[in-house]
Amino acid sequence: MLNVLIIGGDARYLEIIEGLRKKGANVFLIGYEKISFEHPTIFTCKHADADFSIMDAIILPVHGTTNEGKVTSAYSDEDFTLNKDMIAKTPTHCVIYTGTTNDFLNEAVANRKLEVLFARDDIAIYNAIPTAEATLQLAIEHTDYTIHGSNVIVLGFGRVGFTVARLFKHVGANVTVCVRNSADVARISEMGMNPLFVTNLHQEIEHNELCINTVPHLLLDRNLITKMNPKTLVIDLASAPGGTDFESAKDRGIHAIHALGLPGKTAPKTAGQIIANTIISLMESIEKQ
Amino acid sequence: MLNVLIIGGDARYLEIIEGLRKKGANVFLIGYEKISFEHPTIFTCKHADADFSIMDAIILPVHGTTNEGKVTSAYSDEDFTLNKDMIAKTPTHCVIYTGTTNDFLNEAVANRKLEVLFARDDIAIYNAIPTAEATLQLAIEHTDYTIHGSNVIVLGFGRVGFTVARLFKHVGANVTVCVRNSADVARISEMGMNPLFVTNLHQEIEHNELCINTVPHLLLDRNLITKMNPKTLVIDLASAPGGTDFESAKDRGIHAIHALGLPGKTAPKTAGQIIANTIISLMESIEKQ
Amino acid sequence: MLNVLIIGGDARYLEIIEGLRKKGANVFLIGYEKISFEHPTIFTCKHADADFSIMDAIILPVHGTTNEGKVTSAYSDEDFTLNKDMIAKTPTHCVIYTGTTNDFLNEAVANRKLEVLFARDDIAIYNAIPTAEATLQLAIEHTDYTIHGSNVIVLGFGRVGFTVARLFKHVGANVTVCVRNSADVARISEMGMNPLFVTNLHQEIEHNELCINTVPHLLLDRNLITKMNPKTLVIDLASAPGGTDFESAKDRGIHAIHALGLPGKTAPKTAGQIIANTIISLMESIEKQ
Amino acid sequence: MLNVLIIGGDARYLEIIEGLRKKGANVFLIGYEKISFEHPTIFTCKHADADFSIMDAIILPVHGTTNEGKVTSAYSDEDFTLNKDMIAKTPTHCVIYTGTTNDFLNEAVANRKLEVLFARDDIAIYNAIPTAEATLQLAIEHTDYTIHGSNVIVLGFGRVGFTVARLFKHVGANVTVCVRNSADVARISEMGMNPLFVTNLHQEIEHNELCINTVPHLLLDRNLITKMNPKTLVIDLASAPGGTDFESAKDRGIHAIHALGLPGKTAPKTAGQIIANTIISLMESIEKQ
Ligand SMILES: NC(=O)c1ccc[n+]([C@@H]2O[C@H](COP(=O)([O-])OP(=O)(O)OC[C@H]3O[C@@H](n4cnc5c(N)ncnc54)[C@H](OP(=O)(O)O)[C@@H]3O)[C@@H](O)[C@H]2O)c1
Ligand SMILES: NC(=O)c1ccc[n+]([C@@H]2O[C@H](COP(=O)([O-])OP(=O)(O)OC[C@H]3O[C@@H](n4cnc5c(N)ncnc54)[C@H](OP(=O)(O)O)[C@@H]3O)[C@@H](O)[C@H]2O)c1
Ligand SMILES: NC(=O)c1ccc[n+]([C@@H]2O[C@H](COP(=O)([O-])OP(=O)(O)OC[C@H]3O[C@@H](n4cnc5c(N)ncnc54)[C@H](OP(=O)(O)O)[C@@H]3O)[C@@H](O)[C@H]2O)c1
Ligand SMILES: NC(=O)c1ccc[n+]([C@@H]2O[C@H](COP(=O)([O-])OP(=O)(O)OC[C@H]3O[C@@H](n4cnc5c(N)ncnc54)[C@H](OP(=O)(O)O)[C@@H]3O)[C@@H](O)[C@H]2O)c1
Repeated sequence: MLNVLIIGGDARYLEIIEGLRKKGANVFLIGYEKISFEHPTIFTCKHADADFSIMDAIILPVHGTTNEGKVTSAYSDEDFTLNKDMIAKTPTHCVIYTGTTNDFLNEAVANRKLEVLFARDDIAIYNAIPTAEATLQLAIEHTDYTIHGSNVIVLGFGRVGFTVARLFKHVGANVTVCVRNSADVARISEMGMNPLFVTNLHQEIEHNELCINTVPHLLLDRNLITKMNPKTLVIDLASAPGGTDFESAKDRGIHAIHALGLPGKTAPKTAGQIIANTIISLMESIEKQ
Repeated sequence: MLNVLIIGGDARYLEIIEGLRKKGANVFLIGYEKISFEHPTIFTCKHADADFSIMDAIILPVHGTTNEGKVTSAYSDEDFTLNKDMIAKTPTHCVIYTGTTNDFLNEAVANRKLEVLFARDDIAIYNAIPTAEATLQLAIEHTDYTIHGSNVIVLGFGRVGFTVARLFKHVGANVTVCVRNSADVARISEMGMNPLFVTNLHQEIEHNELCINTVPHLLLDRNLITKMNPKTLVIDLASAPGGTDFESAKDRGIHAIHALGLPGKTAPKTAGQIIANTIISLMESIEKQ
Repeated sequence: MLNVLIIGGDARYLEIIEGLRKKGANVFLIGYEKISFEHPTIFTCKHADADFSIMDAIILPVHGTTNEGKVTSAYSDEDFTLNKDMIAKTPTHCVIYTGTTNDFLNEAVANRKLEVLFARDDIAIYNAIPTAEATLQLAIEHTDYTIHGSNVIVLGFGRVGFTVARLFKHVGANVTVCVRNSADVARISEMGMNPLFVTNLHQEIEHNELCINTVPHLLLDRNLITKMNPKTLVIDLASAPGGTDFESAKDRGIHAIHALGLPGKTAPKTAGQIIANTIISLMESIEKQ
Repeated sequence: MLNVLIIGGDARYLEIIEGLRKKGANVFLIGYEKISFEHPTIFTCKHADADFSIMDAIILPVHGTTNEGKVTSAYSDEDFTLNKDMIAKTPTHCVIYTGTTNDFLNEAVANRKLEVLFARDDIAIYNAIPTAEATLQLAIEHTDYTIHGSNVIVLGFGRVGFTVARLFKHVGANVTVCVRNSADVARISEMGMNPLFVTNLHQEIEHNELCINTVPHLLLDRNLITKMNPKTLVIDLASAPGGTDFESAKDRGIHAIHALGLPGKTAPKTAGQIIANTIISLMESIEKQ
């Protein structure tokens, strides 16, 4: 029977707790004082209580820790501070799961396996689904026309761009996808969308009513913003600082929304299941070995 | 050159005005004091001014008139009252366009052609698009899971139900459509969705997280509501009083939204274009004759 | 336990026999000498043997009988001739199933229920699936380009046209559907295809490489054929005599295929199941009453 | 004005000739005696005639040359033998295009740019379209049921597998895709298909009526073949020797088709345009530099 310690988290972690419980693990919780679980294999720990020496896995929040090791929780008013010694007490096979990592974690976990969940392709692809749905919701909400029949340009065709483009096409939009390599151009054509090389973006941008960015670089610079129709709605999904010159957009009166953290906001249950399923199947593949 | 008189209306009517202007009509407006149009062929009339004897067409609001002939406008604080004499002054070929009709209109327009736009199949189908998108927006907003991968049941496969079912399927839901005739069952299968006879609805309802009603009869009665999973979200699109026993839903703690008038709310521009395009092509087909 | 008599048929009828057997019926066969069934509830009858007085249902071939009552079978060298007296011997509740009917059948079955299967909407819709797939197969085979990216025009948007248009669109073609009413135009737009009024067909026909007719009237007359690109491939699905002036097509060197009876040819198993499922659910709904 | 020499080829090369001519190139042909081109910028050369010193580009057949430099053509009874000296005579900027390469070509072209077209991702993706359509044609032809509603398993999710899986899904099949990495599993789920890890293939193989292989390794070995339903149709697309134990399939009476070279066979025009477009855009990007 696995012992898993969860430190901090948010609504998504309720799905992880539930998923692990169902798989028969003992689940130890730090930072969940505000809710109570009535189940013999779920244990709410006081900070000092947790016995790291028995843990087969530790799960940290999606945003990991601060660079000082501080972990926050949506279900506690107190923080918890993780340190190197705690990790050192765990059995050597213990795996530490986190959404993102930093120097502190990389060092603290040096002698254990650190699984950075949000660096995984599978998680990025699954998370693209709620991200795309939330983007669609924003698009429907902030336009006075239907997405069906509208001209939408998606910048980037990575894990998020692919899903966003596909979703808007399925809703009936005329979708152009802007990329920089010829294999993407071929795939976009095959999928019935219009491919566009990024070098030609300045010529096409004005014909679109909706522009969704997924490229994590300043692509929508002042020059491109100037070429846009002022009624264009921009939804930028790229992590801070995004790929849009928001100042220029504001100057031109273009509505640009920087929409971040969408999976956890729009579909915490699904987002939690994505993480839960991945952690569980990683645990299972470890067990098999 | 056609003379068209528009009496009352809302945001959608700006598209109609624009559409008619572009087609070269003289557009006369009653009930638009709050906005101004700077165009030589658009004329804002005082109530008493309008010369009905020159009008080739009169366009009333989507909700028509009251049974006393009163017409309201989103762009005026005053009402206008239409009467039989005004209609009588129009040339005999004049067509009166309205969204819905009533006894007053049927009688007042007896000797002219009355085109009841919302009774038309084409308009109902076009309007199903913004209706479905608004429904999707509500569904994304009021759930904590993704529509992709969820179990959705759509009641009815008429003009709205068809479009709603198709949209949710395209977004990745597992869609069941509940109907009462075998041809619909065949079509639903052909389109890759799950058909269900309404007589078997009570057996399946609990397996769905989202239930969208388009049937304009009390289908979701207390009995069916009792069988639902209490976490089900109900979105009822059927015109008042809807097809849901909202009381029973409330009693069971089921979230049931009666969402009406969606095209005008979610996509007034598209909804206006739908009406504009239809009126214009009707005018053109009259001209050709 | 139902007694069902099957007289004549083809490969599809093996599915019907199998389906009825599984439902627990006694199945009596006339015209199946060439194959043998090893099952206690399947009885191969000599022509004279069949006891009509015990039959709850009689199933005739999809093409029914000749006007003299003659029934042919793919599994027999001999014909069977049905007559009024045989029908008269059946119990009054006996239902006679046939694909198509004629004067002989209408009269002979006057006092029993005659279910004309191919007149049913549900069967027509289910059969549209193999019809469309066979059409696609022909299209791929007889062109030197891919359907993906090609311009395809479908004439008619009835039970077959709808499915054919949808299939070619899903394969990636740019599909135009030619119809004569505005509700179809709206639905075609909603489904992301290009609607075209039949009155404008002459203007558009030349831009299509593939023309698929489902309208059972001479639509592709000499005039339209003359306007076609000579490289156009015409696939006419309408029952004889079809909707194409094949003479004119030949004169212009246009390849026109009149492809009939496709479900039974391309997918006899599925086509048989369609009929079997329908007959069985009709029998079940009778039993319930 | 570019000078382009085409040596050998097949039906696809007519599209390349046409494409280059339209772009304004002088096109020199070796191995095209059987057809004649009436155009001032298309020159049919005798073998000895061709002046390599003026060529900006040389285009070889899709299958390249033999290891002795021999080039064959569908439009000539004679072969042409390329040698190192000919290449050496070309200007240094001359690019040699071939479908596939070998030791001879790699050495002979050492000092010029050799563009191996079929090694390019974009060409592989575009070619996946005719490959998938031809596979669909085979599937419709060699089954007695419809693809719609059937259970299809696709092995591999590379450039071909992706397109094949998508196409069969769009036609209405229930598609399972068998892969070996978790990112593919996520993408397949997102696209509404069923993912399957290759390690679990033996458990699922029997539930599928149609099995399409794109993995260029012996995946369908005797063990898996034994687990298949004997009515399964196998279509193996992987280049020789394919990924199927054809002997074992034969032993079990399983119909296994090794279908190779599909783009050139099923859609030579499209396949030619794919190559033509790629060569032309490569030439254009060279010019721009
Ligand atoms: N808003 C949210 O809720 C949310 C959710 C998930 C992810 N995200 C963020 O969304 C962004 C995209 O994530 P992802 O998973 O899709 O990333 P990804 O798979 O790495 O895709 C990035 C895309 O951007 C393109 N790209 C990168 N640099 C470029 C440049 N200089 N010029 C043109 N194209 C460029 C890439 O093209 P190549 O393939 O040619 O490199 C690729 O198509 C990230 O910032 C991520 O953090 C946000
Ligand atoms: N919320 C909004 O913004 C909005 C927008 C547009 C429309 N609407 C409303 O939505 C409703 C549907 O509109 P529509 O255009 O789709 O109507 P419709 O084309 O007439 O379709 C009605 C559907 O309900 C089925 N139905 C009717 N009575 C039934 C019964 N007793 N049992 C089972 N099924 C039954 C019909 O089945 P059969 O074909 O078998 O009769 C058909 O499938 C209407 O009330 C309309 O006013 C609302
Ligand atoms: N080849 C095969 O294997 C095969 C298989 C199945 C069926 N069929 C044949 O295919 C044909 C179509 O069958 P279906 O079930 O689709 O019939 P359907 O549902 O009645 O549809 C017929 C279509 O043709 C249109 N139409 C009829 N007359 C027209 C005219 N004069 N001008 C313009 N459009 C007209 C109808 O339009 P409206 O709706 O406006 O009337 C409708 O869109 C029939 O001949 C049927 O026997 C062949
Ligand atoms: N029949 C025709 O007309 C035709 C046309 C085009 C191509 N082809 C042939 O089709 C084959 C596939 O081409 P492609 O362009 O799709 O290749 P590709 O993009 O390289 O894809 C190959 C696929 O096979 C998987 N794979 C490779 N080795 C595997 C193994 N040992 N176990 C499990 N999966 C394995 C790969 O998975 P990973 O991504 O995990 O490596 C990938 O999904 C090639 O042989 C090609 O020559 C045939």
